[in-house]
Amino acid sequence: MEPGKETIESWFKTLQADICRELEIADGKGKFESDAWQRPGGGGGISRVLQHGHIIEKGGVNFSAVWGDAPAHILHSLDLKDTQAQFFATGVSIVIHPHNPWVPIIHMNVRYFEIVPADKQSAAKNWWFGGGIDLTPHYIVKEDAQFFHQALKQTCDRHHVEFYPKFKQWADDYFFLKHRKETRGVGGIFFDYLKDTDGFTKQDRFTFVQDVGRTFAPVYTALMQRNKEKAFTADNKNWQMLRRGRYVEFNLVWDRGTKFGLETDGRTESILMSLPPIAHWQYNHQPTPDSAEGQTQALLKKGIDWI
Amino acid sequence: MEPGKETIESWFKTLQADICRELEIADGKGKFESDAWQRPGGGGGISRVLQHGHIIEKGGVNFSAVWGDAPAHILHSLDLKDTQAQFFATGVSIVIHPHNPWVPIIHMNVRYFEIVPADKQSAAKNWWFGGGIDLTPHYIVKEDAQFFHQALKQTCDRHHVEFYPKFKQWADDYFFLKHRKETRGVGGIFFDYLKDTDGFTKQDRFTFVQDVGRTFAPVYTALMQRNKEKAFTADNKNWQMLRRGRYVEFNLVWDRGTKFGLETDGRTESILMSLPPIAHWQYNHQPTPDSAEGQTQALLKKGIDWI
Repeated sequence: MEPGKETIESWFKTLQADICRELEIADGKGKFESDAWQRPGGGGGISRVLQHGHIIEKGGVNFSAVWGDAPAHILHSLDLKDTQAQFFATGVSIVIHPHNPWVPIIHMNVRYFEIVPADKQSAAKNWWFGGGIDLTPHYIVKEDAQFFHQALKQTCDRHHVEFYPKFKQWADDYFFLKHRKETRGVGGIFFDYLKDTDGFTKQDRFTFVQDVGRTFAPVYTALMQRNKEKAFTADNKNWQMLRRGRYVEFNLVWDRGTKFGLETDGRTESILMSLPPIAHWQYNHQPTPDSAEGQTQALLKKGIDWI
Repeated sequence: MEPGKETIESWFKTLQADICRELEIADGKGKFESDAWQRPGGGGGISRVLQHGHIIEKGGVNFSAVWGDAPAHILHSLDLKDTQAQFFATGVSIVIHPHNPWVPIIHMNVRYFEIVPADKQSAAKNWWFGGGIDLTPHYIVKEDAQFFHQALKQTCDRHHVEFYPKFKQWADDYFFLKHRKETRGVGGIFFDYLKDTDGFTKQDRFTFVQDVGRTFAPVYTALMQRNKEKAFTADNKNWQMLRRGRYVEFNLVWDRGTKFGLETDGRTESILMSLPPIAHWQYNHQPTPDSAEGQTQALLKKGIDWI
């Protein structure tokens, strides 16, 4: 039997709890606060935020399951113009900002979306999974980037050999600051509109998304442990703050989920938990090319084979 | 004779130089750097930025005059769909972030826009002026807000008694963070599409815009002097950083000029000089209602008569 929306929602909620527990153990000090919220139009969520941890300066792990009248622009994009329909969306979103500039920022999202037209015709096809994981090191450590991409590739390869190359390229294109002509970090994987096509069943798609979700905690806690004790200078901190400024720019200017949430009356504090606790902007800052900062800057481009 | 685009451009360039000089004198320490830049599609500008002044932590005063093929969405909004046309745009944009949380953030923009269809028919009507000044105190001081609005009203009243009430309301509506349901600050004036309508000539419109431009320096330097010596605490600084976070949110999510610039390949460092040097985000921060912070928060709404 195909997994229904209750099964998927329930699994995402479990994933949130599991990841928060694993992050708390890895951090060793910080605890996630929990805020349950209701959406006026239908549904709600649980926002969990850890601030002032030992390794994590600010981290958010959001779960939501919301429903209501489908926004016109979504129906339009699905060739369902002039249709009355309900939407259902559930997922988990994570962004972690660490204290130590040698520990990378990470983001993950896994989500499920359903559109049910009022007349219930052709409803079966109108569902899809989406998601992704991407890593934003303040300083790119090639071994870490390789480890990260290798883990994502292993997860993808368990489902189809074409997934990793396709979703890796999609991440390069998506996590890109067009106004800076630079990538957000070393990329990762991004995928959307995964339906029961190309020989995959709904269960196959769900199993893949579950596998992606389960990849997050072991990979990121390993990156925390590898780098948490590394010494850093005031210059390293300043560069971290400038890189966080770029993170703010991506999320507020380009990120589709953030824009969609803010424009459609989502819960602002949950959407913007992705923003760093502190960020800097310095006019026309240009690192010298042979500095560690300049070397990272030079690697913020698409198409690098990190493995 | 009507003022032509060369006259208007030249006047804006003079305004930039005059304001930078007045701000340097008021600051007493900081100096504006100057970067001239060229736009690949036509035109260019001069970005002037002062960092690490005595009163001003980061301030930008931009002049630009750019031209080229008119973007499709602008032609569409003017009912000139399927028309070939050139645009010309010139203006001055200013944002000042002070060190002392008792000195407010200020923004001004004055601009002139022209559309010239390729067949030159009806070109005469396709020009307009726009602009505005708005004030964003970290802590609202009612006497300062009154002084600021009184000065804007006097400038407006010299041209038409309906200008101030109309443009004040327009500012309340424009400088509004929809996702926070709060205004950016105490507002000011905002106007757009000022053409040779309602009995005004092009010279009348230009004279008004010049008067607005000339209002900036005396008003803001007075606010600098009034507040620069006020003592502040670490808590005051923290609140300033949170308010600056909201400023970033407005500029990157809602400001039309910023969005237009970033999406159409403008000079990123000039567009984003409006961002503060440092900003903070704190999950679900809620000031207590009777604190100075809570009192400011309660005044971030539309429709207040500050005079």
